[in-house]
Amino acid sequence: MSVIADVLRQPFGRPLRRRELPHQVLAKKFALPVFASDALSSAAYATEEILKVLALAGAAYFFHSIWLSLLITGMLVVLLLSYRQTIFAYPNGGGAYIVARDNIGEGVAQLAGAALLIDYILTVSVSIAAGVANFASGVHQFMHAIPDFNPNARVIASVVVLLAMWYVNKRGVRESGRVFAVPTYFFLGATLLMLAVGFAKASTGNLHDVQGVNDIIRGGQSLTIFLILRAFASGSVAATGVEAISNGITAFEEPKSKNAATVMFWMIALLAVMFVGITRLALVTHAQPSSSETIISQLGRTVFTPHSPFYVAVIFGTAAVLVMAANTSFQDFPRLAALHAGDGFLPRWMTDRDNRLVYGFGITVLSLASGLLIVVFQADVSRLIPLYAIGVFISFSISQAGMVIRWRKTAKLRPGERLPSYSPEGVIVTTLEHDRHWRWKMAINALGAVVTAVVVVIFAFAKFTEGAWVTVLLVPTLVFLFFRIHHHYRAVREELTLRDLNVDEYLESPLRRMRILAVGSLDRHSLPALREMLQSGGRGLTREAVHVDTGEVGSAALRRLWTDHGFDALGVPLVTLPSEFGGGNIVGDLVDYVHGILVADPAIQVELVIPEWTEAGEWWQWPFIRGLHHMTGTRLKFAFLNEERVSVTNHRYVIGQTRFAPPPPV
Amino acid sequence: MSVIADVLRQPFGRPLRRRELPHQVLAKKFALPVFASDALSSAAYATEEILKVLALAGAAYFFHSIWLSLLITGMLVVLLLSYRQTIFAYPNGGGAYIVARDNIGEGVAQLAGAALLIDYILTVSVSIAAGVANFASGVHQFMHAIPDFNPNARVIASVVVLLAMWYVNKRGVRESGRVFAVPTYFFLGATLLMLAVGFAKASTGNLHDVQGVNDIIRGGQSLTIFLILRAFASGSVAATGVEAISNGITAFEEPKSKNAATVMFWMIALLAVMFVGITRLALVTHAQPSSSETIISQLGRTVFTPHSPFYVAVIFGTAAVLVMAANTSFQDFPRLAALHAGDGFLPRWMTDRDNRLVYGFGITVLSLASGLLIVVFQADVSRLIPLYAIGVFISFSISQAGMVIRWRKTAKLRPGERLPSYSPEGVIVTTLEHDRHWRWKMAINALGAVVTAVVVVIFAFAKFTEGAWVTVLLVPTLVFLFFRIHHHYRAVREELTLRDLNVDEYLESPLRRMRILAVGSLDRHSLPALREMLQSGGRGLTREAVHVDTGEVGSAALRRLWTDHGFDALGVPLVTLPSEFGGGNIVGDLVDYVHGILVADPAIQVELVIPEWTEAGEWWQWPFIRGLHHMTGTRLKFAFLNEERVSVTNHRYVIGQTRFAPPPPV
Repeated sequence: MSVIADVLRQPFGRPLRRRELPHQVLAKKFALPVFASDALSSAAYATEEILKVLALAGAAYFFHSIWLSLLITGMLVVLLLSYRQTIFAYPNGGGAYIVARDNIGEGVAQLAGAALLIDYILTVSVSIAAGVANFASGVHQFMHAIPDFNPNARVIASVVVLLAMWYVNKRGVRESGRVFAVPTYFFLGATLLMLAVGFAKASTGNLHDVQGVNDIIRGGQSLTIFLILRAFASGSVAATGVEAISNGITAFEEPKSKNAATVMFWMIALLAVMFVGITRLALVTHAQPSSSETIISQLGRTVFTPHSPFYVAVIFGTAAVLVMAANTSFQDFPRLAALHAGDGFLPRWMTDRDNRLVYGFGITVLSLASGLLIVVFQADVSRLIPLYAIGVFISFSISQAGMVIRWRKTAKLRPGERLPSYSPEGVIVTTLEHDRHWRWKMAINALGAVVTAVVVVIFAFAKFTEGAWVTVLLVPTLVFLFFRIHHHYRAVREELTLRDLNVDEYLESPLRRMRILAVGSLDRHSLPALREMLQSGGRGLTREAVHVDTGEVGSAALRRLWTDHGFDALGVPLVTLPSEFGGGNIVGDLVDYVHGILVADPAIQVELVIPEWTEAGEWWQWPFIRGLHHMTGTRLKFAFLNEERVSVTNHRYVIGQTRFAPPPPV
Repeated sequence: MSVIADVLRQPFGRPLRRRELPHQVLAKKFALPVFASDALSSAAYATEEILKVLALAGAAYFFHSIWLSLLITGMLVVLLLSYRQTIFAYPNGGGAYIVARDNIGEGVAQLAGAALLIDYILTVSVSIAAGVANFASGVHQFMHAIPDFNPNARVIASVVVLLAMWYVNKRGVRESGRVFAVPTYFFLGATLLMLAVGFAKASTGNLHDVQGVNDIIRGGQSLTIFLILRAFASGSVAATGVEAISNGITAFEEPKSKNAATVMFWMIALLAVMFVGITRLALVTHAQPSSSETIISQLGRTVFTPHSPFYVAVIFGTAAVLVMAANTSFQDFPRLAALHAGDGFLPRWMTDRDNRLVYGFGITVLSLASGLLIVVFQADVSRLIPLYAIGVFISFSISQAGMVIRWRKTAKLRPGERLPSYSPEGVIVTTLEHDRHWRWKMAINALGAVVTAVVVVIFAFAKFTEGAWVTVLLVPTLVFLFFRIHHHYRAVREELTLRDLNVDEYLESPLRRMRILAVGSLDRHSLPALREMLQSGGRGLTREAVHVDTGEVGSAALRRLWTDHGFDALGVPLVTLPSEFGGGNIVGDLVDYVHGILVADPAIQVELVIPEWTEAGEWWQWPFIRGLHHMTGTRLKFAFLNEERVSVTNHRYVIGQTRFAPPPPV
């Protein structure tokens, strides 16, 4: 109940203050699920994507999948070794953006960041689509009565999950180890159990083949090197998410770097076991890639039975871990965007946390972009995959290349010498020290850089026409945009700089000010501004009230008041302008009048004072109330928006709220 | 070319001033087309609508149309006699709204006005639809190759005509006698020629029957009194537009009232001749109401031949005059809405003329509403007719009832005595004088009031289920809305009144003011506000600068500047607030701070000064530029929208425009 009331009042919950930001550190057992769900979850679809490519040449070639998965596992080991070194070198967080900025330069950092941003969007789309596909397979198999999900239902289900994720993240539910632990360990347990039971049955000859698969994917192509490369590229998505730990080292318990490295080891080991195991089991059981049932579902119902609780556990564990994986992008994307924004390559306000202390705008942009992809590609994992993972591998390669440069820098230091390296904001991002083994370590990072660069080229080449061109075009476009934004900020800063300006002289140069009260009718709403006007002063100030006579009765009363009170004598004469425009449309007249003053005295500063009245009321009444009035004040403000010699002051009288009671004694 | 350039630059043309309003007076020969096109054009469809109702009982009953048209003509004579008296009584314009307000009261005037406003909307829809129908019939008959207009093409054509009309009227092309004269006299000439030739041929036995009519309308009902009443109601649309002259007397040459009366006589005479003539000719030639060809087209091609230029003249003259008729509503509707608005029953700003001195908003509302009707009713005249004319007859009846009351008032005056009657704005609307024949004249107006009231009842009764219910519900709804608006204005005026307030005491009560400069970073954009701050003064003024420290480097520079220049000693201390919210999001901190001040001193007035910078640029660059910055100023203004004790002042620095050059000597 209280949540409902809360949502009705403030859809995202009560505003939080910065001190309420949680500063949680995670024990290893909780850090693993938080940072590994993205990487581990790719085991759920990597095998399937390899088989789908090989299926184009025929099921006879499925055996290639096993050595491809082993090759990819080899690459994972290279990544483990190189990222281990990054983790120790950048204990405050060593994402590709930071490593590139620190070692290579701003431009390359933008490239790494743009590539990663695009990949985070795809992580959301792919993970949700894969999660929904597994869920659909499970429901279909477990309850035969229900017909297969059609593509529209798949899209709708994916969008609903996405909306829920957007809402939860906008409310600012933080990545909590405990929340992540349940589905991730559940998924690990169920998958490893399935593999164990499967291989045990197989060794005793009790495992039958997968049966009753509908919508089997087949093709009539011949097996070319090109097709093998495509299959390899598809399988490489298994490596996505591996970089997550290097971004989040600060969330680990002390010793941070060491714990992070340990968790990274376990993550890669588990991922390798599951990926190779699933691929092998799929071969043993002759699983068939299908457009309506996932490989995981086929394996699960063959190892167990479609109605067994173990099958259900495998399927829903998989769906749940995929949703968790999508959710990690909701942390990573806005944080990376804020890094770009902080360096002036994305709008500055993207560094602001909103009411709920989350980067709300980044969350919304991520949701919109991945929602667009889901709709365009009909929530079909196989159609999304060609766009995916290029970005991650670009950032891998740049990050490792940065590490190579870093090793070269340490080589110049004497033993014992320490050289801190600072971020643009002046925070230490790394400390360079001499390392006896720098040559070996540099070689490892160089190997990582080269291997991942080769994968990028294979990707772009093998999958270009299938969709990789989108990413290949998008990354440089984003980088171009980032630099345009940066250029704008630099130009503005350049113009606003105080250099070459004698500030003292400027501030002390005598100001000629003209304070003009725009007075329409004489009633309570104009009195506070008039009182302030009568009591204001200062050096070089001229004051007057201006009234546009639209032929209404109020004009005479106003002139009478002025004479009766002798405001002229108090230094505030009343100027009456004839209305040049129709009816109550006085904006044009006031603009003309003020422009006349500005032209007549090129040094004068005009202070236009506008008494406005507004009404206390619910927000939904606002357009109706405003709709009934001229909004002269608002229109005047717009008219002088680009006029630097006119400042506009609003005095507000709030109907139903303002009282002219005598002030209480203080 | 120049028009195109003009449209690209300012789609509605250069702004005009009030003195450019034309003050045209019209000779009778030009006044007739201007004011009569609406009334005369109804002859083009009145007969057809009678026949379409009678057709439901069968073509055998078409002969009833002739006496129905004579009965309606009799009603037109009654209207002529009663409106003649209105014209002399209200020489400054005697529309139903004004007559009702002057004699009966505000409430009834609202009713008359609401009814007329609805009818003006229908005039546009019906006239355009009828014009397009005639045009379509003509094109189809003249060029047999072209297939008949389908309903969609009809709707599209009608909407295109409507859009063109909206544009022309927004640009403010004024009703010019000459522009109206051509199509109206052309229509009159062509129609009268058709009638003359037709009856001449008929008398010599040379007129054959109408042949080759497609889509003939037939029905199987029996002829009931109810059907006759419906036919009468449909034919009564002939009387729409008759009131136009009484609204526009001031546009006539002197002697205005006499000339207006003369033109009204000719208008009614011509309308009667055409209406009865067309009805009679349709009977003689056995014309058949059809859903794809108008009666006018049938008569024209039977009297002449489908390929004769005379037929073309009849058809296009009819289409043109119908478009002219629609156009008159574009004058009448906004003018009447402005009257309502002036009395506070519609938003006040509806009395404002826009850049081009037209009531632009009224023009747009009229276009949208009639466009909606065109689309909903598929531009089908017969489906629109049941909604039409009730409003006009309601206003006729109220207007004549008002005249009856006026005669009773004159009866109380002595001969020679003159009693002017004023509008709420203090303008003389009529002058009461004793009239020897007041009883007779009152009887005429009473007859007019009763006859038109009877027609309203017949309308509402006979056409209720066919669509009249829409109008019957809409009129009171509008009146209710008008009074709600009026109530709002009265409540606001009541609250803002100076009654019970000692103005002198209030204005002289000493003011405690706190002027707060919100300073973010120290660069050129904040200097003008700082200079103004340092040089400002007045009774009871405290000054300070507030800075929210978001941990950026600028904060230290700012504090240094303050110390170096001794601004504290000048009375402007710098208050630094810790940032409670994320990043550059300082609005919340400033709001909290200001609220603290307001609570601490319940009598203090806060003047928040916000230096903002903006950029000179094309309007389309604006969202991009603004999108790159925090817009803290805008957000602060919104935050204090309902806070009467805080006035917000904006100082603007315009990038690419503002220069800190030394002021030239004056």
